Amino acid sequence: MTPTGLPMTVPDPALPTRVRVHEVGARDGLQNEQSVVPTEIKAEFIHRLADAGLTTVEATSFVHPKWVPQLADAERLFPLLGDLQGVRLPVLVPNERGLERALALGAHRVAVFASATESFAKANLNRTVDEALAMFEPVVSRAREQDMHVRGYLSMCFGDPWEGPVPLGQVVRVCRALLDMGCDELSLGDTIGVATPGHVSALLTALTEAEVPVDRVGVHFHDTYGQALANTLAALRHGVTTVDASAGGLGGCPYAKSATGNLATEDLVWMLHGLGIDTGVDLGRLSATSAWMAGHLGRPSPSRTVRALTHQEQ
Amino acid sequence: MTPTGLPMTVPDPALPTRVRVHEVGARDGLQNEQSVVPTEIKAEFIHRLADAGLTTVEATSFVHPKWVPQLADAERLFPLLGDLQGVRLPVLVPNERGLERALALGAHRVAVFASATESFAKANLNRTVDEALAMFEPVVSRAREQDMHVRGYLSMCFGDPWEGPVPLGQVVRVCRALLDMGCDELSLGDTIGVATPGHVSALLTALTEAEVPVDRVGVHFHDTYGQALANTLAALRHGVTTVDASAGGLGGCPYAKSATGNLATEDLVWMLHGLGIDTGVDLGRLSATSAWMAGHLGRPSPSRTVRALTHQEQ
Repeated sequence: MTPTGLPMTVPDPALPTRVRVHEVGARDGLQNEQSVVPTEIKAEFIHRLADAGLTTVEATSFVHPKWVPQLADAERLFPLLGDLQGVRLPVLVPNERGLERALALGAHRVAVFASATESFAKANLNRTVDEALAMFEPVVSRAREQDMHVRGYLSMCFGDPWEGPVPLGQVVRVCRALLDMGCDELSLGDTIGVATPGHVSALLTALTEAEVPVDRVGVHFHDTYGQALANTLAALRHGVTTVDASAGGLGGCPYAKSATGNLATEDLVWMLHGLGIDTGVDLGRLSATSAWMAGHLGRPSPSRTVRALTHQEQ
Repeated sequence: MTPTGLPMTVPDPALPTRVRVHEVGARDGLQNEQSVVPTEIKAEFIHRLADAGLTTVEATSFVHPKWVPQLADAERLFPLLGDLQGVRLPVLVPNERGLERALALGAHRVAVFASATESFAKANLNRTVDEALAMFEPVVSRAREQDMHVRGYLSMCFGDPWEGPVPLGQVVRVCRALLDMGCDELSLGDTIGVATPGHVSALLTALTEAEVPVDRVGVHFHDTYGQALANTLAALRHGVTTVDASAGGLGGCPYAKSATGNLATEDLVWMLHGLGIDTGVDLGRLSATSAWMAGHLGRPSPSRTVRALTHQEQ
């Protein structure tokens, strides 16, 4: 609409004035794409994301390459990011071995990933929920000794493909355990994208009642059923100010059965800027970066904002 | 998620308990598709939409075929819908000639379409805003004499491609004029999809202050920038209970530069049912219908929910 492709701004006084976008495209996005992107392209991607104003860019994962071949180049990629001053570059670590690899490269921020359900803990980590927490405990403890910032991802916070709706108390319990073991922040994942705004509101209310501080809670919505942005709006109303999103909707390929659909950073930023919420992100530059990456992946971006702003013919 | 493809239900007490979906796929959707769909397929489509529980299905348009060749078959289509008892079948009429055509076929409900901006009134109707209102006045008046229900569409209520942000007072003035001339309900259109939730909230507040009853106001969002569902949530918070949507996101072809992107009915219904809001719609049946129509159009549905529920490989 506006010639420059910016949303109109009409603030809502009930919402925060600033949101930190936790950009996951280079990690959560690329690890779920079929193509393996060359290391130099990944490095350029992360530099372009930082140039677009993103201050937290999850860079890669130290999961064993057997499980995530798309990110097997972590040791080669991370040193290429050394010039990015002032940008947070968290990396995913599954265990103590992963943490040691991250430490050896000079990473300052790590993330562990727990599950709110037994079925997904078993499927993803081959452990019970509590066994997984026990595995992360020494990782978090050692990371904190090294003055690292630790994020705790929590999968299946709303629905689980095997178990259906996830009881709120079950999610609250694992959140508390992650904070008690020393995580600095949490990311509540709707891994299969089934949540709706009332459920988001109910979970955040339950967390607040359990004295989990909302300023340590981020949200991570998937757009499988198109609900991610409405759910984000519900979370903002509860005071959440950290929102995960993936540039161009990477990882949410709409052209495959396995599509899980990450919330596209551009669609998020359009809403936030329209609400007068500061993000520091240059939407035009970010969309251009996502269109460029879509070109490398050989398919259109699933982000509606990227398509609208870059006039992608598809 | 659930094995049956239904969202989990967690109500939000601040929202309405029932919403009427005003289904526009057969009219607003198909008139914006490149393909011209055969009359018999349109009739089957509308029957299937009714079978899926939609109670208001906008059926066709009596605009001159020169302007909308996709709906040139209104006279042949409408009689094929005569067996649909208890389903509202409004039709679009641009002027008195169109109204006479609708009356001759026994239509009970009509819709006129005004513009909130001078630029779009000029582009779409070749008139000023007030000249367009003057053109609709005798149409609404004659329709009311015949006990017809009249809906007034209002385009460009948020942003305009030529004028940018649209002042709230300008929208309020045209809304008042449409109600004063006898329209039973209004549909506020974000024709180019640029609105964000704070803007929606501000416009609904301004309308309430101008004593426009919220139970006569529907919302019509486009998903061009992915904002339609978040905007709908903002409108529900203001008590709006009529929401326009297009089955399968018809008319919002994501594969063309001209994409405007209607809100997909399935994505809307997923959110509403998750919020415990009754719609009467059978989501599985509706998604199957949209997948069937996508097959006729030879392209995937833009609705994320349709893709997820029908496992469309694209």
